[in-house]
Amino acid sequence: MQKVTIWLAPVILGSGFIWAVGLPAQEEASSDGPDYTNGTELQRPLDYREWTFLSSSLNLTYIDESGASESRPELFQNVFVNPSSYRSFMDSGQWPNETVFVLEIRRSSQEETLSAGGQFQSNLVALEAEVKDSRFSDGWAFYDFGVAGSLRDASPPLEGERVAGCIACHTDHTAVERTFVQFYPTLIEIARQKGTLKPGF
Amino acid sequence: MQKVTIWLAPVILGSGFIWAVGLPAQEEASSDGPDYTNGTELQRPLDYREWTFLSSSLNLTYIDESGASESRPELFQNVFVNPSSYRSFMDSGQWPNETVFVLEIRRSSQEETLSAGGQFQSNLVALEAEVKDSRFSDGWAFYDFGVAGSLRDASPPLEGERVAGCIACHTDHTAVERTFVQFYPTLIEIARQKGTLKPGF
Repeated sequence: MQKVTIWLAPVILGSGFIWAVGLPAQEEASSDGPDYTNGTELQRPLDYREWTFLSSSLNLTYIDESGASESRPELFQNVFVNPSSYRSFMDSGQWPNETVFVLEIRRSSQEETLSAGGQFQSNLVALEAEVKDSRFSDGWAFYDFGVAGSLRDASPPLEGERVAGCIACHTDHTAVERTFVQFYPTLIEIARQKGTLKPGF
Repeated sequence: MQKVTIWLAPVILGSGFIWAVGLPAQEEASSDGPDYTNGTELQRPLDYREWTFLSSSLNLTYIDESGASESRPELFQNVFVNPSSYRSFMDSGQWPNETVFVLEIRRSSQEETLSAGGQFQSNLVALEAEVKDSRFSDGWAFYDFGVAGSLRDASPPLEGERVAGCIACHTDHTAVERTFVQFYPTLIEIARQKGTLKPGF
C-alpha cells in the first residue's frame, strides 16, 4: 500500500511542471504573505497557528488500488491560510496572488477515559505549503518542510515529478482554483454565492 | 444511549452552581474578548472563525454506560479562542480573565472519490462557548447558542443542572484550569514548560 497526503500525491506525469524562466519582480507582499529567501525558497511560517483555520480532516489521504491497510496510522490534516487572503476570499470567492496555505499533519490519538473511541490530535507529523504565485507557469507552487523533528526552515518549490502530482490533483479534483474548497465548509458557500465553483461542484 | 458534547455533559449534581449575587463591574475588556448584552448575555461571536484555532477532534463525546450505538452521527468538534488570550497563554500557560472559547460542532462527511473512508467537516450542528469570568463563583461560565438553523444571537450563562455538569467535568477532567488543554497539542507543551498542568497530566 502506498499512501501520501493529498497535497503530495506521487502521481508521476511525463512532463508536468515547467519553470518560469527569469522570474519577474514579485508584487508587493501583504504583511502576512509568503516570505522568501533567494527569491523562491519559502520560509516556513512560524506563526501559522495564528492564521485562519480552514478545516480539519481525518485520513483524507490517497490510497492506491491495492487497498487500505489496517496498520496505517490515522492522521488529522489541518489547513490554515494567511488572514488577509481569507478575508479577500470571503469578499470575492477567489484567492489573491500570494495566498499561502499551510497543511499541518498530526497523529490521531484515541481518548479512552472520557469518550471511548473519540479521536483527538496529538504529535505533529509533517508540514507542507501551497502558494498562489503568478511567477509560476501553473500559477501555484508547492513546498515541503519535511517531517516533525527535522523540519526545514525553508523549502524550495517542488520540481519535476514531485510537483507534477500536486498540480494534476489540484487541477482535477479541486472545487475552486487549485484549492480543495469542497472540504472547507465556511468557504464553499461563499464560492457558491460568488459563482467561483468549478463545474461539478 | 445518551450522548452530548464534552462541554455540555448532562451530569446532574445536586447543587453545583451558585450564582454570584450582585455582579461586580467587569474589568476592562480586550478588543477581542466577550461582548455582553444586559451584563451577562454573551453575544454570539460572528468572527470566531478568524480567532485562533486550538484543535479539532472527532466523536469526542460522552457516552454513557449503555454503550455506543452504531447509528450515532459522527461529529467533528473545533475549538477556537480569542487571539489575545491565546498569546497570553503562550506566554504564561494560563488563561487571562475574559478568555472566550467557542466550540463548533460539525457533521463528518465521507470522501469516496479521492480517498475512500477519509472524513471531512461539513454542515454546522451546534455552537457553544465557555468564558473565564471572575464574576462567577467558579470563575467560568458556559453558554449555548443552540443548533444550526436556529442559532441564538446571544445566550445567557447556563444555570442550575445544565451548568453543573459542565463545571463538574471541566473541574475533574481538564489539564489546565477548566480547559481541555490535553487535547490542544500546541498548548500542552507550553503548559508543561510553565508548570501549569494539573497533577496527573
